[in-house]
Amino acid sequence: MDISIDPVAAVTNDDVKRLDRQGVFHSWSTQGSLDPLVIKSGAGCKLWDFDGREYLDFSSQLVNTNIGHQHPKVIAAIKAQAETLTTIAPAHANLARGEAAARILARAPKGFAKVFFTNAGADANENAIRMARAFTQRDKVLSAYRSYHGSTGSAIAATGDFRRVPNEFARGHVHFFNPFLYRTEFWSRDEEEECARALQHLRRVIECEGPGSIAAILLESIPGTAGVLVPPRGYLQGVRKLADEFGIVLILDEVMAGFGRTGKWLALEHFDVVPDLITFAKGVNSGYVPAGGVMVAQPLSDYFDEHFFYGGLTYSGHPLAMAAIVATLDAMDEEGVVENAASIGSRLLGPGIAALAERHEVIGEVRGLGVFHAIELVSDRQRRTPLGAEQMGRLKRAMVTRGLLPFVVENRIHVVPPCIVTPAEVEQGLAIIDEALSELA
Amino acid sequence: MDISIDPVAAVTNDDVKRLDRQGVFHSWSTQGSLDPLVIKSGAGCKLWDFDGREYLDFSSQLVNTNIGHQHPKVIAAIKAQAETLTTIAPAHANLARGEAAARILARAPKGFAKVFFTNAGADANENAIRMARAFTQRDKVLSAYRSYHGSTGSAIAATGDFRRVPNEFARGHVHFFNPFLYRTEFWSRDEEEECARALQHLRRVIECEGPGSIAAILLESIPGTAGVLVPPRGYLQGVRKLADEFGIVLILDEVMAGFGRTGKWLALEHFDVVPDLITFAKGVNSGYVPAGGVMVAQPLSDYFDEHFFYGGLTYSGHPLAMAAIVATLDAMDEEGVVENAASIGSRLLGPGIAALAERHEVIGEVRGLGVFHAIELVSDRQRRTPLGAEQMGRLKRAMVTRGLLPFVVENRIHVVPPCIVTPAEVEQGLAIIDEALSELA
Ligand SMILES: Cc1ncc(COP(=O)(O)O)c(C=O)c1O
Ligand SMILES: Cc1ncc(COP(=O)(O)O)c(C=O)c1O
Repeated sequence: MDISIDPVAAVTNDDVKRLDRQGVFHSWSTQGSLDPLVIKSGAGCKLWDFDGREYLDFSSQLVNTNIGHQHPKVIAAIKAQAETLTTIAPAHANLARGEAAARILARAPKGFAKVFFTNAGADANENAIRMARAFTQRDKVLSAYRSYHGSTGSAIAATGDFRRVPNEFARGHVHFFNPFLYRTEFWSRDEEEECARALQHLRRVIECEGPGSIAAILLESIPGTAGVLVPPRGYLQGVRKLADEFGIVLILDEVMAGFGRTGKWLALEHFDVVPDLITFAKGVNSGYVPAGGVMVAQPLSDYFDEHFFYGGLTYSGHPLAMAAIVATLDAMDEEGVVENAASIGSRLLGPGIAALAERHEVIGEVRGLGVFHAIELVSDRQRRTPLGAEQMGRLKRAMVTRGLLPFVVENRIHVVPPCIVTPAEVEQGLAIIDEALSELA
Repeated sequence: MDISIDPVAAVTNDDVKRLDRQGVFHSWSTQGSLDPLVIKSGAGCKLWDFDGREYLDFSSQLVNTNIGHQHPKVIAAIKAQAETLTTIAPAHANLARGEAAARILARAPKGFAKVFFTNAGADANENAIRMARAFTQRDKVLSAYRSYHGSTGSAIAATGDFRRVPNEFARGHVHFFNPFLYRTEFWSRDEEEECARALQHLRRVIECEGPGSIAAILLESIPGTAGVLVPPRGYLQGVRKLADEFGIVLILDEVMAGFGRTGKWLALEHFDVVPDLITFAKGVNSGYVPAGGVMVAQPLSDYFDEHFFYGGLTYSGHPLAMAAIVATLDAMDEEGVVENAASIGSRLLGPGIAALAERHEVIGEVRGLGVFHAIELVSDRQRRTPLGAEQMGRLKRAMVTRGLLPFVVENRIHVVPPCIVTPAEVEQGLAIIDEALSELA
């Protein structure tokens, strides 16, 4: 088996693809049928392959490069920390770690006291669930069917989407329906009715499961992979009230929605709600170095001052990841990255997508905030029939061929460029989506 | 709350500790009673705080910095990759990722075909378990009481040590006793008897659980945190035979024992055994950038060519982590790091520890391979009573005060310096342990 690349000859896309197919086992796929796109390098919203072909990144990869690719200040910080100390055990005190915690807490709602660092989003949710279970001395975790919380044991069991079913190894996970008017589970006709009925449904699930058995309600502030499901006004506040009424810990998952994506530091700010635990990853350092974590509110922090916390991981608070967090959050401040996401969203991306919906019969609904939007494609507007996989595949190829990297999930295009996207790039990306939709029709 | 550090004044240990206690939530501890050691930087086997105080690292942190701290070639590779591309989604093909897979497979036993990359050890085990469950269409996972496999949902339920009990969220996990002659669970008098009885016990557990329900046997090749329990000759081969007899997938966890620690690339090479899946993390890139993964043997790789794999994570095959893997494995080759671990182990560290046992009544047993050793401390040699927590605490402080960072677990000192440790450093470290033991007596 030839698994090496000639170090003298110039590397080609084919070399890289061959090496990939020879040794790399891929996430969420059937290995035999893969044809991965080759990416060599990037800058801002642009990516390039080894032939110099350029792509406009409207995916932010897995919706994580909020600050864009290869931000010079973050790269410089990673290199500087690499020179000082790459890794140190979690038990020690480290400057970058303390500074990252301080930066994050400064962006949390009032009353948040500590940060527990993890490697990514899944283990952030694992540990939030663990804290809630210890704090309440209860077992069950309620989460939404339309959700994704990660792929490790408890995180995947908390996940509501189809990926949970082959992976239900963990006990005590119960799922409920979250609000989504376009495909209502509650026979509602408007947002207000959807909100009231979704809360009534959640109350009934809590009552039927037994409030005394429920440790946590875990919700994405805005369910992301499920389709950028901006909750109706009042929903999250209603959930907060239910949690208070029954002594349940409220965990908001800000892994995808947090750190600028919606035009605010945290998506929860749009809804005037304060949870007990906030999980994060992705945007906190744009994934330049793997990191995630849990922000812990005072009452839970106090509890663990007195009680042993049974959780941990080798790379908790990894210095290189922490340095990337510090530099990312500082640069986002200095350069108004969150404000850019907000204004691009309300002035250009939102209206631009709405304009597409006027022109293309295949668009059933559009929704979103900031640089976090979804276009829902249907074969029948009346019946809202999701567009089929074959057509979605053609649509995706049409976009990639034109140099756009989209984020396609089921029958949807998620329009999720980096938060630094420029007006010209928004125009370019929307024009490509427009063309691809026309080609499909 | 003052959570910032004056950027002009020189940073002190106290600043860093204050920042830590103000914002950082720690693994496996009661938060109220922490007094973390401050570490600023490192090189090789040395670490320094902000006052310039030096520590000799006999812990390799969490037994991960096999190549030592701040290896210049690995730092250079991280910086170079940081300049090109820090992050890219798992679906794409990336050169560093393909090269890392090739480097790892070149060190795997024959017949290994693919690598699935994760962020660390826990999610490596999560995904190995997931593969075994899909492949066998069975549910249960057998693992040892004396084990640690990570802290996420399925990994912590697979873990056998006390940290599992407050975290048993996942179903289908069954535990058995692994061999450990010094504290035998089988009333054995010698290694051979211990081996035979441990295998007989495992067979009975398999029969009683129902072989048709068992997806995997998950074992650390050499249980690490449990006490560096080098298995008796023939044990792992016996487990392999049982797995074959009952159609069970054998997963060997090489997260701590792998990549040089025992004086071989993989610890399993000492035992002439080939599993179906191998999990790794830590030593693969010394933790300079968080990474782990699963090596997949051909039959399982073939299965997933045809079947969808239901697992994934945002940072699978993270380019920065991959570049660190490539540079680490190449440097270890070029510099004979694995050979150094072997010869240091057999010529100096092993004999040195044995000599300590002759001099100190408090040492009940010593064991290990390469730079992977444990000293078991007892208050009564006859009864093998584990030394109490108060005395272990004093012993630990005595070592740290003398400038040694040890890895202390329960009643044991794990002697686990980086694989690059020099004869002089071994001498220095053992002398400090010697003094600390004398002070205790
Ligand atoms: C809302 C949400 N939570 C958790 C996760 C899991 O994060 P990771 O893949 O880093 O484990 C994701 C990943 O997409 C996510 O979108
Ligand atoms: C044998 C073994 N497996 C798995 C793990 C978990 O690795 P991580 O902490 O990177 O999740 C560890 C950590 O110490 C380990 O020693």
